[in-house]
Amino acid sequence: MALRTRLTDVAEQAGVSTATVSRVLNGKPGVAEETRRAVLAALDLLGYERPDKLRTKAAGLVGLVVPELTNPVFPAFAQHIETHLAEAGYTPLLGTQAPGGATEEQYIDAMVERHVDGIIFVSGLHADSRADTAWYDRLLAMDIPFVVMNGTNPRIPAPAFSIDERRSMDIAVRHLHSLGHTRIGLATGQERYIPTQGKMRGFRDSMRRQLEQADPPVVNTLFTLEGGRAAAGMLLDQGCTAIVCGSDLMALGAIQLVRSRGLQAPDDVSVVGFDDSPLIAFTDPPLTTMRQPVEPMCRSAVTTLVSMIEGGPAPRTEILFLPELIVRGSTGPAPGERA
Amino acid sequence: MALRTRLTDVAEQAGVSTATVSRVLNGKPGVAEETRRAVLAALDLLGYERPDKLRTKAAGLVGLVVPELTNPVFPAFAQHIETHLAEAGYTPLLGTQAPGGATEEQYIDAMVERHVDGIIFVSGLHADSRADTAWYDRLLAMDIPFVVMNGTNPRIPAPAFSIDERRSMDIAVRHLHSLGHTRIGLATGQERYIPTQGKMRGFRDSMRRQLEQADPPVVNTLFTLEGGRAAAGMLLDQGCTAIVCGSDLMALGAIQLVRSRGLQAPDDVSVVGFDDSPLIAFTDPPLTTMRQPVEPMCRSAVTTLVSMIEGGPAPRTEILFLPELIVRGSTGPAPGERA
Repeated sequence: MALRTRLTDVAEQAGVSTATVSRVLNGKPGVAEETRRAVLAALDLLGYERPDKLRTKAAGLVGLVVPELTNPVFPAFAQHIETHLAEAGYTPLLGTQAPGGATEEQYIDAMVERHVDGIIFVSGLHADSRADTAWYDRLLAMDIPFVVMNGTNPRIPAPAFSIDERRSMDIAVRHLHSLGHTRIGLATGQERYIPTQGKMRGFRDSMRRQLEQADPPVVNTLFTLEGGRAAAGMLLDQGCTAIVCGSDLMALGAIQLVRSRGLQAPDDVSVVGFDDSPLIAFTDPPLTTMRQPVEPMCRSAVTTLVSMIEGGPAPRTEILFLPELIVRGSTGPAPGERA
Repeated sequence: MALRTRLTDVAEQAGVSTATVSRVLNGKPGVAEETRRAVLAALDLLGYERPDKLRTKAAGLVGLVVPELTNPVFPAFAQHIETHLAEAGYTPLLGTQAPGGATEEQYIDAMVERHVDGIIFVSGLHADSRADTAWYDRLLAMDIPFVVMNGTNPRIPAPAFSIDERRSMDIAVRHLHSLGHTRIGLATGQERYIPTQGKMRGFRDSMRRQLEQADPPVVNTLFTLEGGRAAAGMLLDQGCTAIVCGSDLMALGAIQLVRSRGLQAPDDVSVVGFDDSPLIAFTDPPLTTMRQPVEPMCRSAVTTLVSMIEGGPAPRTEILFLPELIVRGSTGPAPGERA
């Protein structure tokens, strides 16, 4: 393809002039860093190779541990973390877990052996209230900086970046209550996980405050389609007309279960997901869900880790992020509330 | 939780007796390897930690390079490859690319520096007919085994595991033709990619053979939602009643475009995706798509790489995998063909 065409393509994609693209490609000064990044991103997006002179050696390696990639929210975390790490000059190496596969400690061993500069844990063992946290102590002893995301464990003295699970449940309950629902149940994962505990507390608090129910229906299964089906079945048996789910996968499973009983979502049963996973807006019905602010969470975690790697302090704080309620088509008026 | 409960849970999940679970957990002999793995997988799935004695040190590190995680088929490849690598005792380290982030060569540098035993490339630069393949020659010179997936490049002498793109297009065209469609268009990504070239050849061959059309409508945009919208607009302008897409994301974009014109899929326009990404069965309408046999492809690639790492030969062959047509709700009779 002619150079001219390429400049025009990239300029259009980046929303800048061809002169600016040319300056960036030739490594000339006088271009704002943000603009430079937009041009490089456009180049990558359109599938062009970067000129040799713009290829920078990575400063170091950062390990990234995520539990599994089958829940689509985890690839989204990985992608955003990798983008921000790369912007800071670090090459991310990702370890993910699969049933029967390598364990988190094997990844930590491999990463430490390979001299990573730091590690980011997303929903790792740190989020499991019953897990052995000795691995994290080892990292501290070796002076390897790390941060944890989603699941703040008081036993692990590291910066934590988490969802405000309690407020998120309050937002979901208020939404359903405003639609006239009073029989609302919570379907979530195993109680041993710290985010699950936060959701359960938040749900019960909100149901007590909003609906004066001291013991609302709560079912713990697994954060999967199958877990959602099983939990929804138990909640429908208890007369629920609305189900708040701990993950989008659980919500899709809950909708399957509703249909398998000859009912419709949202006409007979409203369902709220959690995560706002990629592509979830395309489901039938489009899922109402609590959106995790994945990008800002990842940006904060990476900025903090990079600062620690570069000698800054390790703030032992928990940064809480508030999810947004994204109302789509899986929630509606309670049966009997429709005009 | 009591040991008894845990044994029962795991036994139920694994479909074996509690006595078998107990044998596995205590590292006793007399359990088939397949059963042992099923028990470990059940343990992981249910979120229990493995007993210390079952924690094996990983034999080595294998690099895995995937282009990005926003297309949900790539996390699926990563997950299956990681599972099979872990079964073989290797710890996978994943490098993914994001626009503006680290490049494939930075990952290769980082992986080589960290002494990986081998590398698996999924839809990497090898799949780009115009890319510099010097990086692969360097790996060969350093005697680092590698295999490539999706995009067989004759300039790269490595075992290749790819989709039979040509036959896949023939299957899609036959399906649409059998529904009465004669104005069928192909919406796919940039022509520089080897899989795209295969799809274009396969589509044209099939349209010539099935419908005696020498020059059927083909539009090259990007393998994204936006690319699908743009391509579908151009194909509808050419009178197409059916669109074969190069990815599921493109197909979802095509359906958006169809609706933005006040038309319906499949009533007015049929759309076929490609990949059968996770969750794609939940879209509205459920997407008819060509399923990439991700699991068998990953198993073959890992088995071959591990054999190369362990001193076996590097077969310079291309293994082709045939996708399956999964008919769901986005394809239907051509307008005018309905009873």
